[in-house]
Amino acid sequence: MKLSQIVVIGGGFGGLAAARALARERGEGGANFEITMIDRRNHHLFQPLLYQVATAALSPAEISFPIRSIFAGDPNVRVVLDEVTGFDLESREVVATIGRYKFDALIVAAGAGHSYFGHGEWEAFAPGLKTVDQATEIRRRILLAFEHAEMETDTEKQRSLMTFIVVGGGPTGVEIAGAIAEISRFTLERDFRRIDPSRTRVILIEAGSRLLATFDESLARQATRDLEKMGVQIWTSTRVSNITSDGVQLGQESVQARTVIWAAGVKPSGLGKLIADAAGGSIDSQGRVNVDAQLRVKASSLPIYVIGDLANATGADGQPLPGLAPVAMQAGRYVAKAIARLSRGQTTKDFEYNDKGQMATIGRRRAIVEAGPIKFSGYFAWLTWLVVHIYYLIGFKNRFMVFVQWAWAYLTFRRGARLIQEKSAC
Amino acid sequence: MKLSQIVVIGGGFGGLAAARALARERGEGGANFEITMIDRRNHHLFQPLLYQVATAALSPAEISFPIRSIFAGDPNVRVVLDEVTGFDLESREVVATIGRYKFDALIVAAGAGHSYFGHGEWEAFAPGLKTVDQATEIRRRILLAFEHAEMETDTEKQRSLMTFIVVGGGPTGVEIAGAIAEISRFTLERDFRRIDPSRTRVILIEAGSRLLATFDESLARQATRDLEKMGVQIWTSTRVSNITSDGVQLGQESVQARTVIWAAGVKPSGLGKLIADAAGGSIDSQGRVNVDAQLRVKASSLPIYVIGDLANATGADGQPLPGLAPVAMQAGRYVAKAIARLSRGQTTKDFEYNDKGQMATIGRRRAIVEAGPIKFSGYFAWLTWLVVHIYYLIGFKNRFMVFVQWAWAYLTFRRGARLIQEKSAC
Repeated sequence: MKLSQIVVIGGGFGGLAAARALARERGEGGANFEITMIDRRNHHLFQPLLYQVATAALSPAEISFPIRSIFAGDPNVRVVLDEVTGFDLESREVVATIGRYKFDALIVAAGAGHSYFGHGEWEAFAPGLKTVDQATEIRRRILLAFEHAEMETDTEKQRSLMTFIVVGGGPTGVEIAGAIAEISRFTLERDFRRIDPSRTRVILIEAGSRLLATFDESLARQATRDLEKMGVQIWTSTRVSNITSDGVQLGQESVQARTVIWAAGVKPSGLGKLIADAAGGSIDSQGRVNVDAQLRVKASSLPIYVIGDLANATGADGQPLPGLAPVAMQAGRYVAKAIARLSRGQTTKDFEYNDKGQMATIGRRRAIVEAGPIKFSGYFAWLTWLVVHIYYLIGFKNRFMVFVQWAWAYLTFRRGARLIQEKSAC
Repeated sequence: MKLSQIVVIGGGFGGLAAARALARERGEGGANFEITMIDRRNHHLFQPLLYQVATAALSPAEISFPIRSIFAGDPNVRVVLDEVTGFDLESREVVATIGRYKFDALIVAAGAGHSYFGHGEWEAFAPGLKTVDQATEIRRRILLAFEHAEMETDTEKQRSLMTFIVVGGGPTGVEIAGAIAEISRFTLERDFRRIDPSRTRVILIEAGSRLLATFDESLARQATRDLEKMGVQIWTSTRVSNITSDGVQLGQESVQARTVIWAAGVKPSGLGKLIADAAGGSIDSQGRVNVDAQLRVKASSLPIYVIGDLANATGADGQPLPGLAPVAMQAGRYVAKAIARLSRGQTTKDFEYNDKGQMATIGRRRAIVEAGPIKFSGYFAWLTWLVVHIYYLIGFKNRFMVFVQWAWAYLTFRRGARLIQEKSAC
């Protein structure tokens, strides 16, 4: 089967891994593939550290990397900054705002955004944390809240300004809540004259019965204790019924808060439905594309693969694969191999996810790590988290800068990027 | 004369120097001053390096520093994030959006923005470079221009996308033009497949007969040669008659350019006229406040000082003082002393500016330095520029991070912050 032109949509963990692997694979007769990497942004974003931008620990550029530079040394990879709008499978083309891109094989790794469970109007009051711009906006709101509290004379208004509500008790929610508590306790302590930042209320709201549902219960309990030690107030089994500029409604209860951060639902990219419809495939209830054991769109004859948060894939054990970076990266490399074998007329084994475990950081010197039977928390877990994240950061320099920032923050209790930018322009 | 409450408007070089010195001065009977530092932004911006943010070499946070942190150790300094709207000298109050601030002595250091010589409509097509947000917007435009050029098939449109016009041949204009040339020649060279970034046109337009009018002619000539070596096209004695989304009109000539950067006129803050009117003083043709030999608003009986770019002050030699950071910083320290002496009933000498010289960098390993009779350029001048700027950067960490960024950029020819953020939100 002749496959020379491969189009990859999305420069996230999955798409990047796929394109990088494909650039080195050989197709029919040892020929190189011609790879086109399409992303609507010019940079790959290291999402696991995005919460640190939102909490003023890192600068956006330190966790972003120009996709072009990543492929500068791969002449057979073409990077285009364009936004995909549809698919034309008759002519085997990806349709985008600026151009159309021909493919013999297609890899869709467009990822996911936030879901407000049908309450899109909440987004204005409770931004999510998926892009650099959302992160700098959240940073702006957190820092401004303290500034305004310092100026505020009405104590009730002041309390509302110093109340931060994080919705969603997954890793992201836990990490943001921990970081905000840390800022208010340590970083800003000496900077204010009239308010006492340590009076800050950080409330973490989770609809489920416990935090970190994907983690082992013992670790989740540990994380809960650690957060509480830092002063985070945890409300589990609590559903948000409404969010306004004043705060959050929780059934009969309500809390006044000027800053609300959304870390709850995830909504896969709309491209999922488009490719599923075009290829005669289907999507699941969440909007993810149902793929077969080889990560191909079910029912499609063309080699069309969907990976990462946009795919509903099942592991060898029959369990659905979680929406984690390692899953996306392994899937990317697998698909690259699969396409190469396909073009060489060889058969391919099914995708097997090698679970290396998961981890979350709670704050200064506290984290939890879970790898199969191995579970641990505390200082050593935090060091592990540190090493793993620095290791996976793309680009030596970013790695080094982040390390410097962290070392400095750890020693001085300060934050590296306490910058309020105008909302209007950037 | 009892002076206890001092209000400082503006956290730039002048205001910061004044407030820092005042925090350590003693007034009548050895009492501390109560200082209120008002700024509409939360950070001090190291403007001399702002062009490096605009050209993706540094991250905004690396040249910004939270004003609060600067005074964290000074209990007698209160920092407020507020925007001054007027002055009520009857009740000796500064009027701002959120509050009113009582003062016995006042220091106005609100600085200057850009002047489009009565063509405010040009700003949309040719942003200036005074704030972090303007810098990130310029960065966005420069990086997007190359991205779009890569996609563009029409060669004329492509040329317009790869044409960068910098208006204004002062230090800022020279530094931006040099940096853009550098990016196109070195940084992006390997990253693009279809365009040749080295075909970029960088045109530096100056109305005067030569670049860097404030520098010695021999150095200006050297800088011109250096820029030309880097491929910058220099058009002196050229006046801009109109700027549109398509490019620039120069009398009979016109050049198509998608990216135009304004580094020409400077317009002092509107607070200048307000304080002059309120205090019975006057402003000059540019809108700067006329101050006496002790930097006080002429004709005002109250101790009201204006320093930095907002002041029209004359040096001991009868020459007007230039709008440079060193002038503002020295004036700030002088005013702090003057207020202390005044409150202790002592007399004060007139302000004398100690000219330490000026410098500008042209690009990789090229700069010009002028200090009195001493003039030099080239590699050593560049090193001098490097050391001086790192030294003056506030905060050890920023200094260190910038050093790391520069070392890395120098060795790898890469840029540290090639990040395109959405225009809408940040």
